[in-house]
Amino acid sequence: MLIRSEFDIQFQMARRAAMVAMLHLHPSLERHVRTGNVLVVEHLEEGVVPGFGELIGTAEYGDSFGNRCSRFVAPEGLLRVSGTSTIEVDGLAEEAGAEARQAAIEELPCEVLQFLLPSRYCEVDRFMPVAQDLFGWMKPGWERAAAIRDWVHEKVRFDYQTARPTKTAMDVFTERVGVCRDFQHLAVTMSRCQNIPARYATGYLGDIRWPYTGAGDFSAWYEVWLEGRWWTMDARHNEARAGRVLMAVGRDAADVAITTSCGNAELRHFYVESHELLEDGTVVAPVAAV
Amino acid sequence: MLIRSEFDIQFQMARRAAMVAMLHLHPSLERHVRTGNVLVVEHLEEGVVPGFGELIGTAEYGDSFGNRCSRFVAPEGLLRVSGTSTIEVDGLAEEAGAEARQAAIEELPCEVLQFLLPSRYCEVDRFMPVAQDLFGWMKPGWERAAAIRDWVHEKVRFDYQTARPTKTAMDVFTERVGVCRDFQHLAVTMSRCQNIPARYATGYLGDIRWPYTGAGDFSAWYEVWLEGRWWTMDARHNEARAGRVLMAVGRDAADVAITTSCGNAELRHFYVESHELLEDGTVVAPVAAV
Amino acid sequence: MLIRSEFDIQFQMARRAAMVAMLHLHPSLERHVRTGNVLVVEHLEEGVVPGFGELIGTAEYGDSFGNRCSRFVAPEGLLRVSGTSTIEVDGLAEEAGAEARQAAIEELPCEVLQFLLPSRYCEVDRFMPVAQDLFGWMKPGWERAAAIRDWVHEKVRFDYQTARPTKTAMDVFTERVGVCRDFQHLAVTMSRCQNIPARYATGYLGDIRWPYTGAGDFSAWYEVWLEGRWWTMDARHNEARAGRVLMAVGRDAADVAITTSCGNAELRHFYVESHELLEDGTVVAPVAAV
Amino acid sequence: MLIRSEFDIQFQMARRAAMVAMLHLHPSLERHVRTGNVLVVEHLEEGVVPGFGELIGTAEYGDSFGNRCSRFVAPEGLLRVSGTSTIEVDGLAEEAGAEARQAAIEELPCEVLQFLLPSRYCEVDRFMPVAQDLFGWMKPGWERAAAIRDWVHEKVRFDYQTARPTKTAMDVFTERVGVCRDFQHLAVTMSRCQNIPARYATGYLGDIRWPYTGAGDFSAWYEVWLEGRWWTMDARHNEARAGRVLMAVGRDAADVAITTSCGNAELRHFYVESHELLEDGTVVAPVAAV
Repeated sequence: MLIRSEFDIQFQMARRAAMVAMLHLHPSLERHVRTGNVLVVEHLEEGVVPGFGELIGTAEYGDSFGNRCSRFVAPEGLLRVSGTSTIEVDGLAEEAGAEARQAAIEELPCEVLQFLLPSRYCEVDRFMPVAQDLFGWMKPGWERAAAIRDWVHEKVRFDYQTARPTKTAMDVFTERVGVCRDFQHLAVTMSRCQNIPARYATGYLGDIRWPYTGAGDFSAWYEVWLEGRWWTMDARHNEARAGRVLMAVGRDAADVAITTSCGNAELRHFYVESHELLEDGTVVAPVAAV
Repeated sequence: MLIRSEFDIQFQMARRAAMVAMLHLHPSLERHVRTGNVLVVEHLEEGVVPGFGELIGTAEYGDSFGNRCSRFVAPEGLLRVSGTSTIEVDGLAEEAGAEARQAAIEELPCEVLQFLLPSRYCEVDRFMPVAQDLFGWMKPGWERAAAIRDWVHEKVRFDYQTARPTKTAMDVFTERVGVCRDFQHLAVTMSRCQNIPARYATGYLGDIRWPYTGAGDFSAWYEVWLEGRWWTMDARHNEARAGRVLMAVGRDAADVAITTSCGNAELRHFYVESHELLEDGTVVAPVAAV
Repeated sequence: MLIRSEFDIQFQMARRAAMVAMLHLHPSLERHVRTGNVLVVEHLEEGVVPGFGELIGTAEYGDSFGNRCSRFVAPEGLLRVSGTSTIEVDGLAEEAGAEARQAAIEELPCEVLQFLLPSRYCEVDRFMPVAQDLFGWMKPGWERAAAIRDWVHEKVRFDYQTARPTKTAMDVFTERVGVCRDFQHLAVTMSRCQNIPARYATGYLGDIRWPYTGAGDFSAWYEVWLEGRWWTMDARHNEARAGRVLMAVGRDAADVAITTSCGNAELRHFYVESHELLEDGTVVAPVAAV
Repeated sequence: MLIRSEFDIQFQMARRAAMVAMLHLHPSLERHVRTGNVLVVEHLEEGVVPGFGELIGTAEYGDSFGNRCSRFVAPEGLLRVSGTSTIEVDGLAEEAGAEARQAAIEELPCEVLQFLLPSRYCEVDRFMPVAQDLFGWMKPGWERAAAIRDWVHEKVRFDYQTARPTKTAMDVFTERVGVCRDFQHLAVTMSRCQNIPARYATGYLGDIRWPYTGAGDFSAWYEVWLEGRWWTMDARHNEARAGRVLMAVGRDAADVAITTSCGNAELRHFYVESHELLEDGTVVAPVAAV
């Protein structure tokens, strides 16, 4: 299956400011990339058509999680970051690993250990007894990991209006309402409490082979380490889906902000979509919503 | 100057459990090491003299911050981790950089950027306005960085009894009391809010060329990035001191736990000291307390 | 000046449920009431015109703060609570008491002491050092009380979208954004920290002799005890206004919920207005907005 | 049974300061008082024997919960508050009400309604879903109320070292450790979440007809409203005990501080005991500890 993902995001910069973007596809997808995966940063002066602005140079680096980051200096005025990529993937929904075993801590690879630690939005140290009460009696491994995801999915309600940048897993646990990232933070936290390494993931999740759900956006999900590999989990949607396109992973949302500006950046335009593409370049329309 | 640092820590393990230790000196000190810097892990059966227990094998790895970590499986029973190191350093107190300038974000090295982010105990995202009110009017660079350290030192009171594992910078800000790590967390957080990269550091700080202050312990301090390098800061002691011996750095205390056990480890013995050593091996007695 | 205040609030009740309402004017206004101040509770069956529904009986009581509360059992279906009152007041904006002195604690009346204590949304115990840093150096009395109000007004931004029921003064202090109640909670908390008794107030604040600001709503303000009496303060608007009509006072918003339902009550209609009235009953149009 | 309760508390006052004390027995015990129930406040100058100091006048008032409060101005220097009371009670342990029904909200007396609200240390608004998950499936009334008490008793560990003045029910829920007041705050909060009115209580709980547990102190417990009356519950001890002597009730610990000083009061002496007394005045020794 071919997936085309694209974004066009514009900010009005009150003044010159350094920015960091995590808008490339994740390095693990590199061998799947057919076209694109280029970040275009433009300065759009008054009246300039998007795509014809002055190009801003970017520098790339890998962060400590292996994500591909870009940094640049945005001049005062209108800034546009955009890109289009086509990848070829098998088109299968993410696997469930019903038999996946949970490794003993001593068998975890070293680089995985950090995903057991508390982080800004995942207060593992405060959640230990709560997670133990809820899940400690269950069979370790996939069963317990999936139960955590299901519990969060069941107990938390989605509501865009309730998003706030400082919301932590504990806030989600008590308020029981949030957006993508909030669902995943709570599930990540409780997984770690149960010695299941868990990391936060961000990327595209378009309505591919799936009923149409509305305008596109980036999405968040998470991954758990079982049976020697990472498995995709999504406490918000909780459905096996084809068409996730990974951009970045980290301990939690603090590590994988799509764009970070060190000055006043006012969002003016936001377009993010991903679609299935036929070999001839035709976009496959999403299934009509039910 | 020669510094000998040593530790002897013993745990009663309720059952076999994986452990991670960060008890080596920091890799940046490697060229200063004269002797030791070996981690000895022993299982002490009933009646066995420390130093003669069954050796437990350890595996080493570097974490994403460049710290030297050791992992091993502790058997049920009494566990001893110990080590002695001698390093040769210039013996100067840490420098103050009165002229050190604060780099614009765009000039920061990529690997330094992560030390501007919020982390478990450093809620940068919640502290922005508070830090701006307190320090935003000051001259950027050393002056502002030092003012943050001084403010924390002045406003927070030390009290061992008030330590708790979940205490965050916000708790320290409101309670105004804490231990080493709490002072540093608050200063780290406010530094980051002001775009000064700051990282948490842990190591030895014996009473070297300093009045005696009591039994030894590990200590925490922090480092800020100014003028292209890291500078040592200590919001608790707030004195330029010779004899800091660095063990590990990270975003905050969550990253640099001296020992982490994934099972019930009850502390039975705790000895940590560092001293100045003469060339003939004589320990320099600390200056009498005033 | 005559002020007419009115409300018409309708809920869809998922099932029979007990309700408490604080929708009368405050007992201190009783001698100013010319007409109305009656709470009408109706069950509106399908097709019934508001005002002609089946009347629901209510029972009244005074709570420990002297507020007039009504309780009743709402049947399943559409519920309407409504009322209209006319009061006659002097029409002066609330006074400033530039000379008002702050009493020593020992001179405070007993019933005022409780307004120094921490309460659900006013964490006086956590704010002590923060308030002391900010205001402890100022002249006690009106000057300090007004400085607290001004500080909150200056530092906090109004945004309806950021309201949430669990938001405390500490959240407002760190997020610096909120609605009426949030402004007042922060100011109340800091006032109490400085030994100025402060209580939360709720009522009508229409655009009376004031430029039109939009559809009506209940409003919140607060009162401080200085020079032997309560003075009105409003950290959100921070303007002396004619036309406040008090409904209830308490320690914080937890004490003075306009309506509390012990079952699922979905808001269907919400109309709240207060206007100046001429003797002939004509409503005085608010001044055009600037 | 006769119970003698006594206290002798001494503070070093850094300067003259207003104080409030809640050191009388609760008014509901008045008809049981045989002797005493007098609060003695003395200023102890250098060398003056306790009991012979200069008497400080106090003024009494009832707070909004019906507690008997005393206020006075403590001079600089050593302050002693002391008192002895003897009451006669039936000597029965507090009753369990296995059949006690939970009233519908609409049947609750008005003055009881406030004990359903959130308060400083009881974040009812944040605990709703948690309490519903844990207890919502249970039979309402005594069974559910007792299950809440038992759960807290089972899950929380007592540790004097972990007390801190700002600890809320949510902190107790996540840390699972605390002192008397913390156990009761958590149980009170979860009871209110389940529409069981609950109030915090403080008083004496000596080792009467009970094995000796150490030096005396004031204790905290709580009360729930079922079947038309208040029932004593104690989530810390969770044992039916004779010999509780009530001093004050409130929403939570913020309302019933034994002594509140508005200046620097350093505790110098603290003696609190309660014993069973024979008719001839002999103190009944507590049962030897097991």
